[in-house]
Amino acid sequence: MPEALEKVSGIIRESSYSENPIINEGLIDLFDGNGKLLRPGLLLLSARFGKNGIQDKHYKLAAALEMLHVATLIHDDIIDDSPLRRGLPSVHSRYGKKNAVLIGDFLLSRCFVLTGEYTSPKNALYLARMIAIICTMEIEQNNDRWRNNVSKRSYLRKIMGKSAMLFSLACYVGAEEAKASNEVCMRLRRAGYNIGIAFQIIDDILDYSGDQEQVRKKLGNDITAGLITLPVLCAMPLDSTGTLRRIFSKNSFTPEEGELIFSLVRECGGTEAAGQCAQIYTNRAIREIGMLPATDTRDMLDSLARQLLVREQ
Amino acid sequence: MPEALEKVSGIIRESSYSENPIINEGLIDLFDGNGKLLRPGLLLLSARFGKNGIQDKHYKLAAALEMLHVATLIHDDIIDDSPLRRGLPSVHSRYGKKNAVLIGDFLLSRCFVLTGEYTSPKNALYLARMIAIICTMEIEQNNDRWRNNVSKRSYLRKIMGKSAMLFSLACYVGAEEAKASNEVCMRLRRAGYNIGIAFQIIDDILDYSGDQEQVRKKLGNDITAGLITLPVLCAMPLDSTGTLRRIFSKNSFTPEEGELIFSLVRECGGTEAAGQCAQIYTNRAIREIGMLPATDTRDMLDSLARQLLVREQ
Repeated sequence: MPEALEKVSGIIRESSYSENPIINEGLIDLFDGNGKLLRPGLLLLSARFGKNGIQDKHYKLAAALEMLHVATLIHDDIIDDSPLRRGLPSVHSRYGKKNAVLIGDFLLSRCFVLTGEYTSPKNALYLARMIAIICTMEIEQNNDRWRNNVSKRSYLRKIMGKSAMLFSLACYVGAEEAKASNEVCMRLRRAGYNIGIAFQIIDDILDYSGDQEQVRKKLGNDITAGLITLPVLCAMPLDSTGTLRRIFSKNSFTPEEGELIFSLVRECGGTEAAGQCAQIYTNRAIREIGMLPATDTRDMLDSLARQLLVREQ
Repeated sequence: MPEALEKVSGIIRESSYSENPIINEGLIDLFDGNGKLLRPGLLLLSARFGKNGIQDKHYKLAAALEMLHVATLIHDDIIDDSPLRRGLPSVHSRYGKKNAVLIGDFLLSRCFVLTGEYTSPKNALYLARMIAIICTMEIEQNNDRWRNNVSKRSYLRKIMGKSAMLFSLACYVGAEEAKASNEVCMRLRRAGYNIGIAFQIIDDILDYSGDQEQVRKKLGNDITAGLITLPVLCAMPLDSTGTLRRIFSKNSFTPEEGELIFSLVRECGGTEAAGQCAQIYTNRAIREIGMLPATDTRDMLDSLARQLLVREQ
């Protein structure tokens, strides 16, 4: 659906336009074709299962979801001190953290303007509740840094709040606003949820992929931030030397220790085990999708879920 | 209306409650009786001009406005590096900037939940638009630091976006949701706007008040941040030595220069001139209030507007 997503991009650009040059420049790259627009894509695909199909409000809602997502990315990058986003310097590294906080707030409020203007009050509420949950989970994650006793359950709970709920909402809202049956809406909600979990696990695995040359680059991401993601969690019990557990009990590590984490997680089979876990969630999503009415859209959704599992970036 | 404001406080505490201890602790002090609850107070007073009077939704809306205000304060304090807020350590100095960004986002989203749940979609929209404007003005202000050619007009535009609009909205929405006549709603809107401008000017003057002993404390605020507020703007043309203009053309200053700014602004009559400007806006507010229906509430609003002009903190 490239034209449909192009339409969403247009609404995003229009809705986040500001006369302030810093806001505009800060946002322009983020909305300039580099994003995958996954959440809008899922929303629009889901709308096709409703008897009313895709309507004008779906494009607006899809745009709002992506704006919410990008607003959280901007604040995330400040929090994680990430120098890059989508291959370009992150907003805070170009315009300073002060402006980045405000640009994120600006985008968040424009996202609410869009939902307030074009969708049912119920959906605006969903969105607001979602942001509260995303923030809470981010705070939990931020405070779980450098703790070697994070449980798999706690990890899953956090990525549910951070990622899966937004995917789930995209699917549900798309179908619901197109007047799909309740059964279809709930099925899409579950499919979105499971796709979201698998997506985030893969994202976390990708921090540990690539050749040794890329290691130093990756060390700028979750690893140096002390975040314990699923590949580490899976590797820890497999690491008979206890090195991983020991390193993560400190509050920082040397570049050499960083490289050690990187290779240990892979050598102990942490990324593989995490990949199997992602596969489980993708399978659940595919099962839900398989029980939707048999249409072209169903096939597209099915292959999207499969593609996300094997993506390389 | 102490009981009415107590009720608003209760709603704020309830609506911003989180099971996450960091969020709760971070917010508890901010909502623990230290705030003046000015915006909620104005909203509730304005509601009394409507034929329906104060209803349940007014308390919720008043709580949402205060939450929005506090969310912007939390992000502001990060941006201005302020160590204190309401006499206590600011959220970011207690919990770190990362958590403070997220706690502000959390509060913002809960404020939208509250408006989404209890008020008309139109009001939720107003609120969202307002935040976008507040952010834009904050970004402009942030980028006007250390510029000695800021105009009075540009200063007023910024405090309009930062402060006056929220006061104005409080008055308008309070009256409108209580079914006041359009004339009364518009009058209250203008009164709130002028009260808000005067309030912010006084706030900026207070940075230059107090005895020499307090100077060093104050140097932690707007002055060291390089913000050119009205007292400085008024003092510049009166400072025949050109010292102020020279200092503000740099990108930082020494503590001695800070103290020099402090005394020059006062000696040249900058605070006095700014005070006269605040008086003009208060007079405008009082004139609007004087044309409202003659009731006890009108008298209360009138004395509130006068009190804000002479407050000492």
